[in-house]
Amino acid sequence: MTKRLDLFPLSTKIQNDRLFVANCDLTQLAERFGTPLYLYDRLTLDSAAKEYRSALDKFYPAASSVTYAGKAFLCKAIVRWALTHDFALDCTGAGEIAIAAVAGAKKENILVHGVNKSDEDLQSAFQFASVVVVDNLDELRRIRELIAENIPDLWLRFLPGVSVSTHHAYTQTGHHESKFGMTDDEILAAATFCRENNLPLKGIHFHQGSNFRDAKPLLPAIDSALDLAQKINFREEWHFCPGGGWGAAYHEDEAPHPRIEDYVRGIAAAVVAGCARRNLPLPRLRLEPGRSLVARSGVALYRVGAVKRRGEKVWALIDGGMADNPRFALYGAKYSCLTVSSPNQERDERVSFAGPYCESGDILIEDLPMPNIQRGDLIAVPVSGAYQLSMASNYNGARRPAAIWLDDGNAVEILRRESASDLLDRD
Amino acid sequence: MTKRLDLFPLSTKIQNDRLFVANCDLTQLAERFGTPLYLYDRLTLDSAAKEYRSALDKFYPAASSVTYAGKAFLCKAIVRWALTHDFALDCTGAGEIAIAAVAGAKKENILVHGVNKSDEDLQSAFQFASVVVVDNLDELRRIRELIAENIPDLWLRFLPGVSVSTHHAYTQTGHHESKFGMTDDEILAAATFCRENNLPLKGIHFHQGSNFRDAKPLLPAIDSALDLAQKINFREEWHFCPGGGWGAAYHEDEAPHPRIEDYVRGIAAAVVAGCARRNLPLPRLRLEPGRSLVARSGVALYRVGAVKRRGEKVWALIDGGMADNPRFALYGAKYSCLTVSSPNQERDERVSFAGPYCESGDILIEDLPMPNIQRGDLIAVPVSGAYQLSMASNYNGARRPAAIWLDDGNAVEILRRESASDLLDRD
Repeated sequence: MTKRLDLFPLSTKIQNDRLFVANCDLTQLAERFGTPLYLYDRLTLDSAAKEYRSALDKFYPAASSVTYAGKAFLCKAIVRWALTHDFALDCTGAGEIAIAAVAGAKKENILVHGVNKSDEDLQSAFQFASVVVVDNLDELRRIRELIAENIPDLWLRFLPGVSVSTHHAYTQTGHHESKFGMTDDEILAAATFCRENNLPLKGIHFHQGSNFRDAKPLLPAIDSALDLAQKINFREEWHFCPGGGWGAAYHEDEAPHPRIEDYVRGIAAAVVAGCARRNLPLPRLRLEPGRSLVARSGVALYRVGAVKRRGEKVWALIDGGMADNPRFALYGAKYSCLTVSSPNQERDERVSFAGPYCESGDILIEDLPMPNIQRGDLIAVPVSGAYQLSMASNYNGARRPAAIWLDDGNAVEILRRESASDLLDRD
Repeated sequence: MTKRLDLFPLSTKIQNDRLFVANCDLTQLAERFGTPLYLYDRLTLDSAAKEYRSALDKFYPAASSVTYAGKAFLCKAIVRWALTHDFALDCTGAGEIAIAAVAGAKKENILVHGVNKSDEDLQSAFQFASVVVVDNLDELRRIRELIAENIPDLWLRFLPGVSVSTHHAYTQTGHHESKFGMTDDEILAAATFCRENNLPLKGIHFHQGSNFRDAKPLLPAIDSALDLAQKINFREEWHFCPGGGWGAAYHEDEAPHPRIEDYVRGIAAAVVAGCARRNLPLPRLRLEPGRSLVARSGVALYRVGAVKRRGEKVWALIDGGMADNPRFALYGAKYSCLTVSSPNQERDERVSFAGPYCESGDILIEDLPMPNIQRGDLIAVPVSGAYQLSMASNYNGARRPAAIWLDDGNAVEILRRESASDLLDRD
């Protein structure tokens, strides 16, 4: 349904029968920086950022902004990039807050999430963040106890599954299963607590899931959240984050990358109509579009170390896998790839790519139509920008890969490769 | 079927209504070192090591030794411990070799595995290891190209799935699915290659899987491997590693921890009988018992930060989870736990324990009968010694926990807790 090349960053080209991203020759990058290697294409990042901005300007008549999900991939370079677009940074806990703050994020750019924030997380949030998304009533009570001054804005995290299910039977599945957020009643109790304790309740947040391709499942949740906003009686500026990460296409069997405009238009229309119906002032719309900002900008480069052909089954063993990208092992995620040399060769066999780790689940791609693969070949895996390096481990003594920022012919190392001595640092 | 307390390290006791391991009060350890915290009980480690040694002496009439699986948990302290028992260390690649060598492992103690060893891995093996387990023919050719002197012993990694399936139809499932090792024909070709190139072929290795409770599934594979040994015609000292990690009980619904003696007796009898039938000299038996050496010695301590009660569903949110132990997310692993205070209280509700990370799969335990849980409670999760810290990540900015070595009243930090500045080290 999708061309394999179209999964890759926008700046990807084939020149002299070799793969280039951002006018950088991937063969040369692999030689210069080694493999496995993660590449981030600035053009693709900027393009997604601009699409969000222009779609918000087009479809939403009040103030709006975008929040970058730190959990997808966080390092100083991506924080600085997010700041150039005036994005907020969603940080889960003191670790991510530290990275954002060191990279120059100001209070107004840092928003803190977390289902079980420690005292350290909260203290760090008070010092560095302008927004804390409160997950539960216990946390709200602790915030009141811990805080002295510089109280950040508080948003309440709503668990729409429970609420939605009372209106729509088909959404009941799993409504009790989520560990996140507060039910309707808990939200209203929290709002009362804020009012009674003079805490700055400024918004509502929910998150329906990740990698959406259709904004529709968000709409009943938006309505439920606006019902609560009406009961809370927001009268002046308030913030609304109807969360749910917008998707990316990982494999040519999927439809193309979903359009950012569709996501923004769907949400904006529902918020505008829902507020009008309830006579609510339009909130500042805060989108958290998740992987759709960063997944496609990333490419993972691996080198094939050995090939095993046994009848129909072809294993290409590569130099990374589960330790830098556990998404196959965790979710059975379906990836694709191209050879860096002769990417358009005829694909006449099915190849499975597995990593070097002693674990049967250390597979990256299964049975993908490929040209003949040999030891030494480089493969490029698209849509590797999100939820890969951020979940990477040192399993089997793996040293985590370097990450390279590509910007029109320039390649800058933004995360250095781990060394064996890094493995001994805490020992 | 099993008492919950019996899942814990051998030195675990309840004193003054609190949980102790190795005569250390877990409440005090949590206060002193913080949570999440990993504890390793030396008594349990020593006991398992001695059981292997005495079972081998009892059931196997020739030389034998035990190999510790680095991938289960590797740091300098555990290497030093393994050396006190004269264990070999199975290292996957240059990263694990570096840890073992820095901790004082000599060549004769280091054995190198890996399905796709890089040139760096091989060079490191030549320098620091006495055994390389060769995964495939390509690798064997590379070893011949790279090696100058100090050639380590070579063992061939056999893929018994394929071979067994030709004799026993019921084992055919998945015989083509493994990325590991060589088929019968490939093993014989590799042996010929070694002979022609004067490479020191000294053994055969296979690995049938992990967490076994019954040695029987290993027996057909042992026979197939001995068939190959006969064809290779080992006449003098040779090494045989019939791999397959012996199990541990993670939950009281399972049968108790399987007996080490059963594993050793089953394997030893099959090797002795199989060699006699084939007129093969008895190999040096090299066991790789995997998690059974280390899993039970480990306890993970977490603190409850918030509790959500919604009808039947009770969520206790703890301060670790998927980032330090991804086994629930990866395999749906079923864990148990005790409260550190009043561990024997009546268990009158079912509690699910989830971590602080923004991920629905960040769950540690589901619906476990527990006493009433409150914010601030400590829980101790048994059987946490293997495949947890070795797979840990910095997801959501998590800083990996400290590990503490417990030895009869003494508690020594063997891995320090990561700090926020560690997260910025490579950035």
